Amino acid sequence: MRLDTDPYLQRYATRVRGMAASEIRALFSVVSRPEVVSFAGGMPYTAALDFQAVEDVVVEVIRDHGPTALQYGGGQGLEGLREQLVDVMAYENIAAHTDDLIITVGGQQALELIAKVFINPGDVIVAEGPTYVGALGAFSSHQAEVVHVRMDADGMIPESLAETLERLAADARRAKFVYTVPNHQNPGGVSLSVERRERIAELIEAHDLVVLEDNPYGLLDFEGITWPSFRELIPDRTIYVGTVSKTFAPGARIGWVAAPGPVRNKLTLLREAADLCPSNLTQMIVETWLRRQPWQEQVKRFREVYRERAETMLRSLADEFPEGCTWTDPRGGFYVWVTLPRGIDTSDLLAKAVNKRVAYVPGRGFYADGQGGDQLRLCYSYPTPERIREGVTRLGELLHDELELVRAVYGGDAPDTHGPTRRHDHDSGVAGRGG
Amino acid sequence: MRLDTDPYLQRYATRVRGMAASEIRALFSVVSRPEVVSFAGGMPYTAALDFQAVEDVVVEVIRDHGPTALQYGGGQGLEGLREQLVDVMAYENIAAHTDDLIITVGGQQALELIAKVFINPGDVIVAEGPTYVGALGAFSSHQAEVVHVRMDADGMIPESLAETLERLAADARRAKFVYTVPNHQNPGGVSLSVERRERIAELIEAHDLVVLEDNPYGLLDFEGITWPSFRELIPDRTIYVGTVSKTFAPGARIGWVAAPGPVRNKLTLLREAADLCPSNLTQMIVETWLRRQPWQEQVKRFREVYRERAETMLRSLADEFPEGCTWTDPRGGFYVWVTLPRGIDTSDLLAKAVNKRVAYVPGRGFYADGQGGDQLRLCYSYPTPERIREGVTRLGELLHDELELVRAVYGGDAPDTHGPTRRHDHDSGVAGRGG
Repeated sequence: MRLDTDPYLQRYATRVRGMAASEIRALFSVVSRPEVVSFAGGMPYTAALDFQAVEDVVVEVIRDHGPTALQYGGGQGLEGLREQLVDVMAYENIAAHTDDLIITVGGQQALELIAKVFINPGDVIVAEGPTYVGALGAFSSHQAEVVHVRMDADGMIPESLAETLERLAADARRAKFVYTVPNHQNPGGVSLSVERRERIAELIEAHDLVVLEDNPYGLLDFEGITWPSFRELIPDRTIYVGTVSKTFAPGARIGWVAAPGPVRNKLTLLREAADLCPSNLTQMIVETWLRRQPWQEQVKRFREVYRERAETMLRSLADEFPEGCTWTDPRGGFYVWVTLPRGIDTSDLLAKAVNKRVAYVPGRGFYADGQGGDQLRLCYSYPTPERIREGVTRLGELLHDELELVRAVYGGDAPDTHGPTRRHDHDSGVAGRGG
Repeated sequence: MRLDTDPYLQRYATRVRGMAASEIRALFSVVSRPEVVSFAGGMPYTAALDFQAVEDVVVEVIRDHGPTALQYGGGQGLEGLREQLVDVMAYENIAAHTDDLIITVGGQQALELIAKVFINPGDVIVAEGPTYVGALGAFSSHQAEVVHVRMDADGMIPESLAETLERLAADARRAKFVYTVPNHQNPGGVSLSVERRERIAELIEAHDLVVLEDNPYGLLDFEGITWPSFRELIPDRTIYVGTVSKTFAPGARIGWVAAPGPVRNKLTLLREAADLCPSNLTQMIVETWLRRQPWQEQVKRFREVYRERAETMLRSLADEFPEGCTWTDPRGGFYVWVTLPRGIDTSDLLAKAVNKRVAYVPGRGFYADGQGGDQLRLCYSYPTPERIREGVTRLGELLHDELELVRAVYGGDAPDTHGPTRRHDHDSGVAGRGG
């Protein structure tokens, strides 16, 4: 049994680049080689799980609840699992009741169902720029127009959000919702400051909007800090999405939505049309894991693993990347977001990087409007620290060579690779400290 | 841990009847009592599985492939599982290649994704009448108009299909596809004869259409007979949907689509937007089950269980149901479809039935156009033979009482309960032998 290549990079290649099947096959025949260091897929390091504990849980479920675990279930998901997930939310100081929750196939199904409930073709969704590629996929599959709000090291910039909402109002348009990943954002690697959360909550209320709060990484703060959620600040206006993919295992395909009653009922009906019900088997495995195992200890172990990898990556970037490159400073989660000097297009660079045995996801994948040509996402969650150093060294060498070439050809006048809405220099977007 | 009530009946109550939450709660507080015999949910008898074998499989997956089983996977599903499912199809004499298949969250996700690819609001889908309620849910969630084709004991009537297609053509409309459950149909309990399959395949070709062949029950023929599939007859025009829900376990949530290349690529992109990927864990469990366990023996065991239950139900119906009732004669699968004499509305009758501690799904749930008020579906797969006898006896008593009342009130002139398109007497739809 084998994992068929890197699913994230594959999505990027097919959806964003529109690569032909033959090109994709050629690319992946290289990427899937063990000698390639992949910073592409946002994959948790599942090998850090306690597999004896997992086995105990799975055997308990089969022995004690076999016929039910292998049976159909209800569309909202098992009540016992929802009870446990309420406890998981409470661990982040977020209040919820078991009735508020719907179990979904990972966070992605939550985004898709919410998109289906809210979006008519041409509707506007406001989201951070850059934002989660899977959310873009769900929104665009319902023909939404995504409008990006700028970010910096403290997350979404409230003034940029206010401007965007006012501009939409001036055009007699209104966002269906504001989508945000407030904690350790994918792909930005930054978190929304406490003050900004309050300011953004006020804007949401003032414009009579709904916020879609997507929180896969909230428990993976390296210091164990938890942040105030929009669900706490404006519960009636918040649709909250959670997942066990990063705190337990994505292979369970268990996420959830906590939403106000009317939205919840629509979501449950749509989910039944979509796939009838979540898997009782994986629901019961997650329920038993949360009920019987010290899952908080496992979360701490994951934090330590990712903290070490993040630190390794940041040190390596400082050592190996050429001057002019900047990157964010993650305090949790999986990602570092890198901005290159003018003249290098990260989409074009990918094939060369893969030839040098290192992979990443080019920045354009995380915008709806073609921005991000000078940016890329590095994910440090999966490779070991040693491999991270190797990979960053390889990528640094490539960037040195490319920048030398750019300077030789263009001198000080390298082409703009950012895309159609190049930000102004005084507002440098998600950048952070330089190399 | 408990199974939260009967998911099928719940779907019926919310979607078809539009019952209020309080009514539904009241109904289900009764249905979920152990003394109620439920013929409602189309649930396989998972207790007939060899749970030691299931445990062995699950432990093998966790021990030998833990980190991968708990990781993300690709949107098409694991190649190893697709290889095994090609063998399952071959066991029904259906040819396929691993590349042809996409793994889905049960057959339901397959129907939803196909609906999303093909259906624009207002499009026509042609389907048997009655048809699978989950397909109606998927099609209607994309605002399709479902046009029903009549059935009899040999399945969909080709002349009725031809008429329907010609009527649509005369209106300058065209079906997006013809949906059929050719083997042991849900809810009809009948199979399409070999001659009709050929005739329908010709009609599909003549009208330049596509057929959506949904085959959950093909391996559950009581005699082990397999029937020619549309995928064999017209492969380029067939989208084939399979599932392991009835031959292994619905709790795995594993189904699949086999489709021509262009459709397959669209389906894979939409599935990634819908939920990223199927569960590696349940995929590997199913793959290992099919690779290592004598799954064909398990299928034979299921057949025997369902055959005994079908025979028990048919005998009980003949003994207990009043004159004027008719029902189909299943040779496989899970269902008996019952038509009552004029004057009894099966939707209205449900509450009384539940009070008499027996449940079924009223016929209207299986039509898009309000037909079926005089019909109901009985599912024999889940209750034991003894419970089946009890349940049919209770329902028979209720029907005797109701018919007596109808005769006392209306004499020979009972109201028509079938619905807006009452069939003519000379073409009695899915009826079969009388009671």
